[in-house]
Amino acid sequence: MSNSIKNLAILGSTGSIGTQTLQVVRNLAGRFRVVGLGAGQNLGLLSEQIAEFKPKYIYYQSQNLVPGPSHDRGSKLSAHNCAFLPMEEIASHPDVDIVVIATSGKAGLAATLAAVRAGKKVAIANKEPLVMAGEIITREAKTNGAQLLPIDSEHSAIWQCLNGDASPVKRILLTASGGPFRGFSVEQLAKVTPQQALKHPSWLMGKKVTIDCATLMNKGLEIMEAHWLFGVQWEQIDVIVHPQSIIHSMVEFADGSIKAQLSFPDMRLPIQYALTWPERAPNPELPKLDWTKVKDLTFEPPDFKMFPCLELAIEAAKTGGTAPTALCAADELAVELFLKEAIKFTDIARLVEGVLREHQNIINPTLDDIMKIDRWAREKALNIFNQDKKC
Amino acid sequence: MSNSIKNLAILGSTGSIGTQTLQVVRNLAGRFRVVGLGAGQNLGLLSEQIAEFKPKYIYYQSQNLVPGPSHDRGSKLSAHNCAFLPMEEIASHPDVDIVVIATSGKAGLAATLAAVRAGKKVAIANKEPLVMAGEIITREAKTNGAQLLPIDSEHSAIWQCLNGDASPVKRILLTASGGPFRGFSVEQLAKVTPQQALKHPSWLMGKKVTIDCATLMNKGLEIMEAHWLFGVQWEQIDVIVHPQSIIHSMVEFADGSIKAQLSFPDMRLPIQYALTWPERAPNPELPKLDWTKVKDLTFEPPDFKMFPCLELAIEAAKTGGTAPTALCAADELAVELFLKEAIKFTDIARLVEGVLREHQNIINPTLDDIMKIDRWAREKALNIFNQDKKC
Repeated sequence: MSNSIKNLAILGSTGSIGTQTLQVVRNLAGRFRVVGLGAGQNLGLLSEQIAEFKPKYIYYQSQNLVPGPSHDRGSKLSAHNCAFLPMEEIASHPDVDIVVIATSGKAGLAATLAAVRAGKKVAIANKEPLVMAGEIITREAKTNGAQLLPIDSEHSAIWQCLNGDASPVKRILLTASGGPFRGFSVEQLAKVTPQQALKHPSWLMGKKVTIDCATLMNKGLEIMEAHWLFGVQWEQIDVIVHPQSIIHSMVEFADGSIKAQLSFPDMRLPIQYALTWPERAPNPELPKLDWTKVKDLTFEPPDFKMFPCLELAIEAAKTGGTAPTALCAADELAVELFLKEAIKFTDIARLVEGVLREHQNIINPTLDDIMKIDRWAREKALNIFNQDKKC
Repeated sequence: MSNSIKNLAILGSTGSIGTQTLQVVRNLAGRFRVVGLGAGQNLGLLSEQIAEFKPKYIYYQSQNLVPGPSHDRGSKLSAHNCAFLPMEEIASHPDVDIVVIATSGKAGLAATLAAVRAGKKVAIANKEPLVMAGEIITREAKTNGAQLLPIDSEHSAIWQCLNGDASPVKRILLTASGGPFRGFSVEQLAKVTPQQALKHPSWLMGKKVTIDCATLMNKGLEIMEAHWLFGVQWEQIDVIVHPQSIIHSMVEFADGSIKAQLSFPDMRLPIQYALTWPERAPNPELPKLDWTKVKDLTFEPPDFKMFPCLELAIEAAKTGGTAPTALCAADELAVELFLKEAIKFTDIARLVEGVLREHQNIINPTLDDIMKIDRWAREKALNIFNQDKKC
């Protein structure tokens, strides 16, 4: 164990990954100091976190973006002795060693870019920034000596399998639980409620990513994330459904040998690995795999027909340019509408497909291009939704 | 790929591992030069191998140990332009970079020791030398800068999983196919014939190790091999039955994360990995795992009651000293008797147990002690067998 304490900034600290990151910080006492926290909505929890971890810098979204309860902020947050900063400034602050991007959707893009430009270790749980601006982020990371540390369980697995193996990767096998609706018929899928979709069989996660798991869109986004993080080509990445979520992904090497990473499905393990890497730390709080209970690991191909989002994501990935941005933006809006029960589960793919069909691709996009297409795609998705309502 | 050609000596070249090693050498043309070959029995095949690979040094057992067909050797071998040397001299010859110990039973002990003392890379398929003299071999390897490269599929898997992970090992999970008689009753086991026992469900191997797989003795020997190769304690090694032989073993690290190595069960892959390490090489001849056919990986605890050899081996391992030697020697003799249909399958464990019960342990044994106990245990096993016959 290294003796130096690492200084963390956690952006999205009140979400699922954020709170689990703070659990890891509590469990591995003395290894980390929380110097920055940022949250979007949950003022009450943020205030508790500030009281417990005493960060120097905080960000709260409503302060800058959302018109609203500034008196709330005043009373709840100003009592603490910490400075309010924009997310990007926390992410790039000289006091910070590791930035945990635990935001949701496109929210983490600017902070991720700021962190890589400042040469930080950037632990990424929020996959959309890489999907939308993977080329820019990885180029800036390389230029500025930043390290991208995956937190997504699949990418953490791949990263762990790649460690120490210098030989070329032949194939990445991304495992997928298949989501809660594996084996459902079209009729059953059309009737799925947000409550059902939010019950993931293996993982405890935020709402957006849980719905993306149910549509398999998440697996498509993960293909793009793997491409950018590990420099592998699209045709080298295969998806394999493994409902038990014990094998978190696999790497096949030049000689046909495959390495896999396994563990009880709990996000705190990949979070902890990103934070302690290149070391590993014992953590009694983490549930361990019990081999007297693991009887059977099963595998099957993904059902592209019933879950068209996976194919849409793969097509957008191969198209490149701003297509992944259009996909992400349309999906984010569609998931929001589904959670509000404004559209059916099966409409998510339809909305995304409608947006992609009209998207005018920009290759080698600038960040401005990406933001422009992001706005356009959300509007377009909303248009399709409104037109549908009229019909 | 490194450009330097590696010089190989293959001891036991006409056996299962030996012939598969030569297949790898053929497949990876230009990477290896065969400078030494040694064999025990199969003069015809050895002669063909010499004609094909043109080694400088050869060893043929009958020349030194077995009274017999020296005219055969004369006519078949002396036509080749190569020198006859004892195995130990080939194993330690300055011309040799990697020594492949592909002998069976205790036959490889002297050559293994000679190779480690000469600071070679020693690719070990023959587990008995490590089981009998693990402390001496690993100490000499350390002193002389030799590297022990495991060929056994399980140990190759562990080695691959450990590569690049500096953090302490919490547990090694040695997988076992369970052998061809998993689930058999006592009555069924007693009736097992050598022909049945030699049909291993997943692996193509030599006779001795195939019978050891059927009794689970092999898994016990592998526990000892893992202990010496990787410096882990007995209580850190667990055996888990995995009949599909796809996962070849696993390593659990300090944080509870587990790495596994998977491949189609074919010994040429671990052989090749030991020879090309730290690189990996594409080899179109090696069968690859087809995930459309891998539907199901299952796991269960070993049946210690039906397969008492596993428990006997674990006890001998924990006892240490010359107990593992007594175990190996008794087992080697018992397997020989079973193959000759002189004893029943279930008598193998009984013979080994009888020998262990009367064994007077010598702790910190010298090589002489080990050889003495080896002889004593074989005689003892034979005595028990002869007494049984009289009854």
